[in-house]
Amino acid sequence: AKSNIKTLIPGYTHFQHAQPVSLAHHILAYYEMFTRDFEKLMNAYKTADVLTLGSGALAGADFDIDRQLEADALGFRSISRNSMDSVSDRDFALEFNFALSMVALHLSRFCEELIIWNSFEFGFIKLKDEFTTGSSIMPQKKNPDVLELIRGKTGGVISNLLSLFIMMKSLPLTYNRDMQEDKKPVMESADTVSSSLLIFKEIIGTLKFNKENLASRLKDDSIYATDVATYLVKKGVPFRKSHEIAGKIVSYAENAGKTLSTMSLKEYKKITDFIEGDIFDIFNPEASVNSKKTTGGTAFKEIKKVLKEYEKEIENNKKLLSALK
Amino acid sequence: AKSNIKTLIPGYTHFQHAQPVSLAHHILAYYEMFTRDFEKLMNAYKTADVLTLGSGALAGADFDIDRQLEADALGFRSISRNSMDSVSDRDFALEFNFALSMVALHLSRFCEELIIWNSFEFGFIKLKDEFTTGSSIMPQKKNPDVLELIRGKTGGVISNLLSLFIMMKSLPLTYNRDMQEDKKPVMESADTVSSSLLIFKEIIGTLKFNKENLASRLKDDSIYATDVATYLVKKGVPFRKSHEIAGKIVSYAENAGKTLSTMSLKEYKKITDFIEGDIFDIFNPEASVNSKKTTGGTAFKEIKKVLKEYEKEIENNKKLLSALK
Amino acid sequence: AKSNIKTLIPGYTHFQHAQPVSLAHHILAYYEMFTRDFEKLMNAYKTADVLTLGSGALAGADFDIDRQLEADALGFRSISRNSMDSVSDRDFALEFNFALSMVALHLSRFCEELIIWNSFEFGFIKLKDEFTTGSSIMPQKKNPDVLELIRGKTGGVISNLLSLFIMMKSLPLTYNRDMQEDKKPVMESADTVSSSLLIFKEIIGTLKFNKENLASRLKDDSIYATDVATYLVKKGVPFRKSHEIAGKIVSYAENAGKTLSTMSLKEYKKITDFIEGDIFDIFNPEASVNSKKTTGGTAFKEIKKVLKEYEKEIENNKKLLSALK
Amino acid sequence: AKSNIKTLIPGYTHFQHAQPVSLAHHILAYYEMFTRDFEKLMNAYKTADVLTLGSGALAGADFDIDRQLEADALGFRSISRNSMDSVSDRDFALEFNFALSMVALHLSRFCEELIIWNSFEFGFIKLKDEFTTGSSIMPQKKNPDVLELIRGKTGGVISNLLSLFIMMKSLPLTYNRDMQEDKKPVMESADTVSSSLLIFKEIIGTLKFNKENLASRLKDDSIYATDVATYLVKKGVPFRKSHEIAGKIVSYAENAGKTLSTMSLKEYKKITDFIEGDIFDIFNPEASVNSKKTTGGTAFKEIKKVLKEYEKEIENNKKLLSALK
Repeated sequence: AKSNIKTLIPGYTHFQHAQPVSLAHHILAYYEMFTRDFEKLMNAYKTADVLTLGSGALAGADFDIDRQLEADALGFRSISRNSMDSVSDRDFALEFNFALSMVALHLSRFCEELIIWNSFEFGFIKLKDEFTTGSSIMPQKKNPDVLELIRGKTGGVISNLLSLFIMMKSLPLTYNRDMQEDKKPVMESADTVSSSLLIFKEIIGTLKFNKENLASRLKDDSIYATDVATYLVKKGVPFRKSHEIAGKIVSYAENAGKTLSTMSLKEYKKITDFIEGDIFDIFNPEASVNSKKTTGGTAFKEIKKVLKEYEKEIENNKKLLSALK
Repeated sequence: AKSNIKTLIPGYTHFQHAQPVSLAHHILAYYEMFTRDFEKLMNAYKTADVLTLGSGALAGADFDIDRQLEADALGFRSISRNSMDSVSDRDFALEFNFALSMVALHLSRFCEELIIWNSFEFGFIKLKDEFTTGSSIMPQKKNPDVLELIRGKTGGVISNLLSLFIMMKSLPLTYNRDMQEDKKPVMESADTVSSSLLIFKEIIGTLKFNKENLASRLKDDSIYATDVATYLVKKGVPFRKSHEIAGKIVSYAENAGKTLSTMSLKEYKKITDFIEGDIFDIFNPEASVNSKKTTGGTAFKEIKKVLKEYEKEIENNKKLLSALK
Repeated sequence: AKSNIKTLIPGYTHFQHAQPVSLAHHILAYYEMFTRDFEKLMNAYKTADVLTLGSGALAGADFDIDRQLEADALGFRSISRNSMDSVSDRDFALEFNFALSMVALHLSRFCEELIIWNSFEFGFIKLKDEFTTGSSIMPQKKNPDVLELIRGKTGGVISNLLSLFIMMKSLPLTYNRDMQEDKKPVMESADTVSSSLLIFKEIIGTLKFNKENLASRLKDDSIYATDVATYLVKKGVPFRKSHEIAGKIVSYAENAGKTLSTMSLKEYKKITDFIEGDIFDIFNPEASVNSKKTTGGTAFKEIKKVLKEYEKEIENNKKLLSALK
Repeated sequence: AKSNIKTLIPGYTHFQHAQPVSLAHHILAYYEMFTRDFEKLMNAYKTADVLTLGSGALAGADFDIDRQLEADALGFRSISRNSMDSVSDRDFALEFNFALSMVALHLSRFCEELIIWNSFEFGFIKLKDEFTTGSSIMPQKKNPDVLELIRGKTGGVISNLLSLFIMMKSLPLTYNRDMQEDKKPVMESADTVSSSLLIFKEIIGTLKFNKENLASRLKDDSIYATDVATYLVKKGVPFRKSHEIAGKIVSYAENAGKTLSTMSLKEYKKITDFIEGDIFDIFNPEASVNSKKTTGGTAFKEIKKVLKEYEKEIENNKKLLSALK
């Protein structure tokens, strides 16, 4: 992300050009998602970090065992408090599989974007050859197979969570052999998600952005319509009115076969007197991006600020992880 | 639970009599489950307790707003750190629906048990008339409809979680109108689970246990087979051998048309010399229950200890909840 | 089923005694379910029985191939009609997994019943030893592990269907590598369901019913309350009124600590004059069962009739199956 | 579709340009999907078209009713054959919801394509204004909200199917009140899918294709690489070798900053002697499309042939539908 703070890209809502944003800002949205997933995984770890040994068959053990001592010796944080619950509980498996499903969900979104960005029409990125495959019929193909496979595996991970829910539904206390079917979903999803993350990291690390194409997509001037409205607000027009005028300008340009930046000042003046020569300064993606003022916004200085915060956070999370081992 | 510490009930594994347990112990297993759900709901609250206002359309706002100030004023714990993520994130809805699904899952297990306990064959409980309904054809019926409905609604709650996963799968950044479909699963599941809990509380509060029937089910002496094995261990027989001998005793009784307590000492002696007159002291559910020694076990004093812990915990959790408002 | 036409068992609604039924009738309800599943599997077979070869990469093949001839040679019923659909279609996998999920669902219900029937409280059946396992702690246990495992695997089968839905959701035409993930759900569910069916067949074939226990459960006279109402209808009382009177009788018996068959005629007369000495003839499960008049009902002669129909049907279905090979 | 047989569009695999196809061919792939859905819905109708009346509470009715007569009078195809199954069966609801889920799945794919085709980068289509909405912040936006909502509702429909599976899992015979929860998934999914189909039909009926953009995307000459390989095969080169040579040509062009059609014959000759002046005839989407020979392929005459078949089929299906009423 760091090296792409100043690379600009169209930001989308409804898969339509919305406003220009920093590529780093786009990618860091996924940092936020994966950080939430990390917290969920840590919570799942805590839920599982409870010693159930000493619960006997279901009623407790007949012999005088110090379970807290056992927990300390085996490295568990705490001991379970009800022997019947201990024997019939699979909440830890469900919570872990939920957290894994969230990771898979976020990966599916990121892969979808990269697959689209890799299309002829978008042409935003170039994947390293080892992450694409050719076609047995079509000699020109460089298919993003690995990304598609990661996306395709999302269904398997989410459905493993569901299999646990269905398995546990309506089971009376305490242990029932049905519960043995918890192994597959837990092991399989853990494997799928961890190997997906490993290869995804490789793909991201070797991704090339086609900056020429990114720049050319930003020539869609209508992406500055919001900036036009803001311009008008700064000139004293109320926002509702500004929004309406900006809409008229976009329509005018479309009908006249022009774009916002190729319209003449005279044409602008015909629509509203509030527009002056400085209007042409705003048809510039960098100006647009840096005009955002709020914390968490796409302005370069905000991104730099947040990146420092992330670095500390990553350090902390690494410490948390190594403390677990 | 408090009033049922000394009420004894067969404990089941594989839906087979395993060992006698305290009824309170059985019910408190659900306390453990719902306490874990409470933690999950609190975590979901924290995830949702983040102000996204000020993210603009996706890039941040053009105006200089102090978002931390807004968060303080509106009572949010913190502010979101990436405007694109803020606009495209539904993790909070998924996490909340997961926690609700866990509650529904645990309710389905509790309802299943009560429905079974309410059958002619079990006859453990009597439901208050207002929670049963008659039949338009069969005049004798007192059907546990409310419990069945709570159990039946489990599918709806879990599937709402799935609908969110499917909705979000593979969606590119940032906002897509698909996300509007998050309202129904969130609202509907919250309503279902909260009204299920309210009525379930009523049902539990007015439940009558048929202690005569509970006692008669414990006359299945084979439930003491483990105690026989433990008895032998205390007489110096290694556990593996004890287990084997106890198995032989159970078989002998079955074939001889007797039960463990109606077998004569002479018959016992034929199988093993380690058994003496005091064997007959163990065919007593209360003795069996209180012979469990471990923390978290079903012995009365352990249950009393844990109940005190729970009371404090409930106080704390109530404080946590009222702090949220 | 044939040998159990005259074995009687309580019929349940809401897991409560409803009316006595023939055990054969109960078991044949599952014949109906599995017959519907057979039809679904045959439909899925037809959907899959379409040759896609000759669709090229997606646009058709460049060479003049007679695809109908290929289909005939390879034993396909028909050829696909749109090469782009051929390449991007996984409907056959979804339909097959749906049919398998229905089988698993029906097995889960049958296993649930057998597990309950195998409990101490019900005691309806005895499983062959090879389908139960002991416990490492409790020497008396004969756990119905195999039935629990079949029931427990239901979640895996249904969730495999879901994984296909999630995988295919929102995929643009035509082939995407995601689709490779169709193999696992199809193969795995086919294996699970076919091996579950094979072992389930063994379990059913070696099942012993404890007819003494079955008979004793039918001593719950309230099961004849509907027959009392019908008796009154035959004596000229309108059904609504009869239902009400029968309800009163049940309540009276309950309060008086009696059962319907131990109440005296005098006591009956106090409630309604319509009841005469012949009332005591109806407290007989066989009479109750055979009083049912409708096609598809539990009367012995209806079951015999339907069994003949089933035998022919099974012959036909076997022919259909061998025609496929 | 009829009017777009000669409109050409890039065909995609792995979301990458594969080969040119007829737009009609692409759209008719969905005809195939929806036709399979129609069959599934008809099968579900047949499954539901069975009279259960006369099954009594579960054992059959006490009165002599001719159920076949009732079925005839009420317009049912047949009568149920086991009263216990009749009372506890929800297969018809599951099968109907499965068929609806398939429709929703296919709609999600079609909507996804249209949403992508509606992006700035693709620019293949223009949606009628009434099916797009503006943005409260961004004046230029014409968001494909209706398509996104249809896609977004897929999760709700599929999850309703799941809710039925979970509801029915492990339910003992016969009726349990849980089953009342079948209403919502059935009604809700039927409403969602039928209203989605109605509005989708409107959207498709008023869609405008931007033929200029479609044509310009086909200028990506690498889409003819397969045709180059086929050309070589026709000149006598074995396919494997042809594929390899065509791959080399694509690489050469890429490195030389040229396209297949701007490479000179001399350059071609350097790679292989098999290429002659007629190579330039193949860089023409219409020639490519019509070079496909197989039934079900994208060649114009094949599409015309299949369209006639479809017309008859639609007539037949309409007759089938009106026969149901």
